[in-house]
Amino acid sequence: MENILRRVKENDVAMIVSSDHKHLFVRMQKGEEIQTHRGVLKHDDILGIPWGSELRSHLDMRFYVLEPTLRDLLLHIKRKSQIIYPKDIGYILLRLSIAPGKTVLEAGTGSGSLTLALAWCVGPEGKVISYDRRADMQNLARKNLERVGLENRVELKLRDIEEGFEETEIEALFLDLPDPEKYLGQARAALAHGAVLGMIVPTTNQVSEILRSISKYPFELIDVCEIALRFYKPVPERLRPVDRMVAHTGYLIFARAVVPFEG
Amino acid sequence: MENILRRVKENDVAMIVSSDHKHLFVRMQKGEEIQTHRGVLKHDDILGIPWGSELRSHLDMRFYVLEPTLRDLLLHIKRKSQIIYPKDIGYILLRLSIAPGKTVLEAGTGSGSLTLALAWCVGPEGKVISYDRRADMQNLARKNLERVGLENRVELKLRDIEEGFEETEIEALFLDLPDPEKYLGQARAALAHGAVLGMIVPTTNQVSEILRSISKYPFELIDVCEIALRFYKPVPERLRPVDRMVAHTGYLIFARAVVPFEG
Amino acid sequence: MENILRRVKENDVAMIVSSDHKHLFVRMQKGEEIQTHRGVLKHDDILGIPWGSELRSHLDMRFYVLEPTLRDLLLHIKRKSQIIYPKDIGYILLRLSIAPGKTVLEAGTGSGSLTLALAWCVGPEGKVISYDRRADMQNLARKNLERVGLENRVELKLRDIEEGFEETEIEALFLDLPDPEKYLGQARAALAHGAVLGMIVPTTNQVSEILRSISKYPFELIDVCEIALRFYKPVPERLRPVDRMVAHTGYLIFARAVVPFEG
Amino acid sequence: MENILRRVKENDVAMIVSSDHKHLFVRMQKGEEIQTHRGVLKHDDILGIPWGSELRSHLDMRFYVLEPTLRDLLLHIKRKSQIIYPKDIGYILLRLSIAPGKTVLEAGTGSGSLTLALAWCVGPEGKVISYDRRADMQNLARKNLERVGLENRVELKLRDIEEGFEETEIEALFLDLPDPEKYLGQARAALAHGAVLGMIVPTTNQVSEILRSISKYPFELIDVCEIALRFYKPVPERLRPVDRMVAHTGYLIFARAVVPFEG
Repeated sequence: MENILRRVKENDVAMIVSSDHKHLFVRMQKGEEIQTHRGVLKHDDILGIPWGSELRSHLDMRFYVLEPTLRDLLLHIKRKSQIIYPKDIGYILLRLSIAPGKTVLEAGTGSGSLTLALAWCVGPEGKVISYDRRADMQNLARKNLERVGLENRVELKLRDIEEGFEETEIEALFLDLPDPEKYLGQARAALAHGAVLGMIVPTTNQVSEILRSISKYPFELIDVCEIALRFYKPVPERLRPVDRMVAHTGYLIFARAVVPFEG
Repeated sequence: MENILRRVKENDVAMIVSSDHKHLFVRMQKGEEIQTHRGVLKHDDILGIPWGSELRSHLDMRFYVLEPTLRDLLLHIKRKSQIIYPKDIGYILLRLSIAPGKTVLEAGTGSGSLTLALAWCVGPEGKVISYDRRADMQNLARKNLERVGLENRVELKLRDIEEGFEETEIEALFLDLPDPEKYLGQARAALAHGAVLGMIVPTTNQVSEILRSISKYPFELIDVCEIALRFYKPVPERLRPVDRMVAHTGYLIFARAVVPFEG
Repeated sequence: MENILRRVKENDVAMIVSSDHKHLFVRMQKGEEIQTHRGVLKHDDILGIPWGSELRSHLDMRFYVLEPTLRDLLLHIKRKSQIIYPKDIGYILLRLSIAPGKTVLEAGTGSGSLTLALAWCVGPEGKVISYDRRADMQNLARKNLERVGLENRVELKLRDIEEGFEETEIEALFLDLPDPEKYLGQARAALAHGAVLGMIVPTTNQVSEILRSISKYPFELIDVCEIALRFYKPVPERLRPVDRMVAHTGYLIFARAVVPFEG
Repeated sequence: MENILRRVKENDVAMIVSSDHKHLFVRMQKGEEIQTHRGVLKHDDILGIPWGSELRSHLDMRFYVLEPTLRDLLLHIKRKSQIIYPKDIGYILLRLSIAPGKTVLEAGTGSGSLTLALAWCVGPEGKVISYDRRADMQNLARKNLERVGLENRVELKLRDIEEGFEETEIEALFLDLPDPEKYLGQARAALAHGAVLGMIVPTTNQVSEILRSISKYPFELIDVCEIALRFYKPVPERLRPVDRMVAHTGYLIFARAVVPFEG
């Protein structure tokens, strides 16, 4: 492996992982140091080595330097609000049929975890338009996007969607709001015929509210679901699930925008 | 909505959904007819109307014509083998950090459900290279890809990976094989330093085999998990899960290719 | 094992299990025959042999004759309504603190699956009092109890509990009704101070209704939960969950009857 | 409610619950005091009041005095080892068909949580015989049984079951051991024909070991399963599962002791 293409460069965001699975996210800068619970690492010792390399701290403790995956980035976003979790985002991407080059709409932006995933998946030719009425949340989301260099794919709109979306003919729209049932008319107006609407809410009452409201608008193929993710202890001779898990993040709701028959 | 961009065109693959949620996938062709359990629909009556439109069969039964989402395509793939399900694929995409423009490796191709999802997500600039030693499976996968026009993004290699992959410096590799524990050396050789390996297997014995084997190769951050998806009946005043669900598809295993310390 | 105490006797209810796990429940009677999908078995060949014996039908197919467990009896009850399942009943018994000799109240009787389990557990010194306003359901429940010889431990009351229960000072009460939130006053009046109330309902809306209503009565320590049971294919070299499972039976709610402070 | 039968008496074990759901178990004794994180309660103020009564500490904080249910007792057992949880015990009781008056066998005793539940359910006419080779565990289990007055229903045998059980013709036997697959011959010898064997183990490897071993002995109808219990926040207008839950306690295995055909 003489010709290693993938080496740690200045300004890369590196994930530094200790052997007890603690994660640190660090932007690589010449001359700086990383203080960990298991000793100090110098950026200059990391710059230029291959991704995936094992490191030793000044206490001779073991670390790895890794390029964060999309899932790593989502879990380590800076947050002021409940984020949407990878287990849910993965499924949302399939249901919304996100693809390179597409334009996707979102409200609200929140801390920007779904925004980041959407921006990742639409690629440099695509676009994410994300509404929120809180400037502080959008500033946080902007920083989270800038940290991973995806801010150019996202248009953040500081605006209450009660007045409606400015876009039409949109192929996919996701609502992550406390009261999405109030904005289903605005959502339908923004969506192209046949397009997909997705939502997430934490409580069963909200699911019922949405189901009550959505029947008044031209949406069909309504699906409600929840996703559970259970990890196992990776020990070959004593394989078993971990002791505790996340019991709930939210209920996912999907629907298709339709055109009623006018025979 | 005078200027509707998204209309059903000849050669489009349309999903025809009845009000009792039966799905048909049809390639639109002038002059043809769709025979359903609820009457006949004519292609000519569908061509040119907006996606999402409600239709009526000759028996006056209600249907919708929809562009299939990625998830719809995955569920309706023609299969000779167990496919990987959307609930798992969504999470795999995040863990493998699939992005537009990337080159991704897969073995085996099988019926091509993951192949299709990977091809979708890497976009026209990306590439999926998929190995299988069975010509019949690759022919089936090829047809599944052609059906949705993604065959140009995929290179199918009819070859046993026991001899190794022909590629190196790959950023993401997924193994969907009966015995992935035998090919972890070949996998590591194909992967770039720091890259991600993913696997799926149905039994706990296979998970243990993989965990035993993987400790002999430079892989770290090994994760084992399973994903459950539960649907709800979308009735606002009687919200409750459906009666039955899929209990198991497979165990997912992820690892990072590392470079051991040679201090 | 010369002195085998436990042999099949006339009038015993036997569970006849084929090697493909089909179950038949048969009351043993001299001279009769059992017609199965795998041939005929004669009662006279079974009477007097030890429980657990392997049998062969006239087609030389393999069967076992087993004394049904409480769980077997619950699953094979004759039903006109949704029954409560063993996975839920087991936990209900612990939460209601059912013990030999206790008197327990239930409404409604339904097909009598919980009635049967309660009668089993309170023993010959205990008593189950079960209300229902439908004579047909109570007749069915009576037959289900008689089939297993537990009818003497149960008092079936054909009566609407809107008028209240006739009992007071009851230690445990279970409501399996479409609208338990309407009878919480009656429930509190029947319960001894400190006693346990349990309920099961299928929908989240009913859970919310109960939680709204119960706050108006002296109940505390309110718990809502659901139980999932997943089976595995018992194959040592290919251990994995079965393909499909029950996704939902009902939500369980428990509370303690308290005496508010009157300082 | 003039004639209240159920009042707190001296020597009763009371569960004292604060409004933030902390539980204390206290044996009531004249003249003593209960120190809590929310102030002091005097036994003399509790003795003679009805069960379920609301109390106030010297800081005027709210408490309830409740008779512990079987589930409460199981959760608050003093433990040196992993206990079996109520969600599993409830189902075990149904599968083992535990009933008042029965004699049940168990190995090992451990901290005695299942021992306690079995003793509770077999009643004063029944008997639990529990083997363990560790005196310290049996002493702990004995204390746990004495605390609730069930020690007379249990015979603790300090003995390695490698030498076999001293009993035969037993109707139900439960193994909670690190290596139950080694004792299936001894288990079969102790069990009556047709009787039920139950086991719990934490890992999938142990399940496979048991399945391999059990096929050598006359057992049939082998079932492997796991039980999940998810709690909800009991808030009527914001009903949703709690954030975290127990992901795993153990796999349950059940089998019936049979008599092979000797045609």
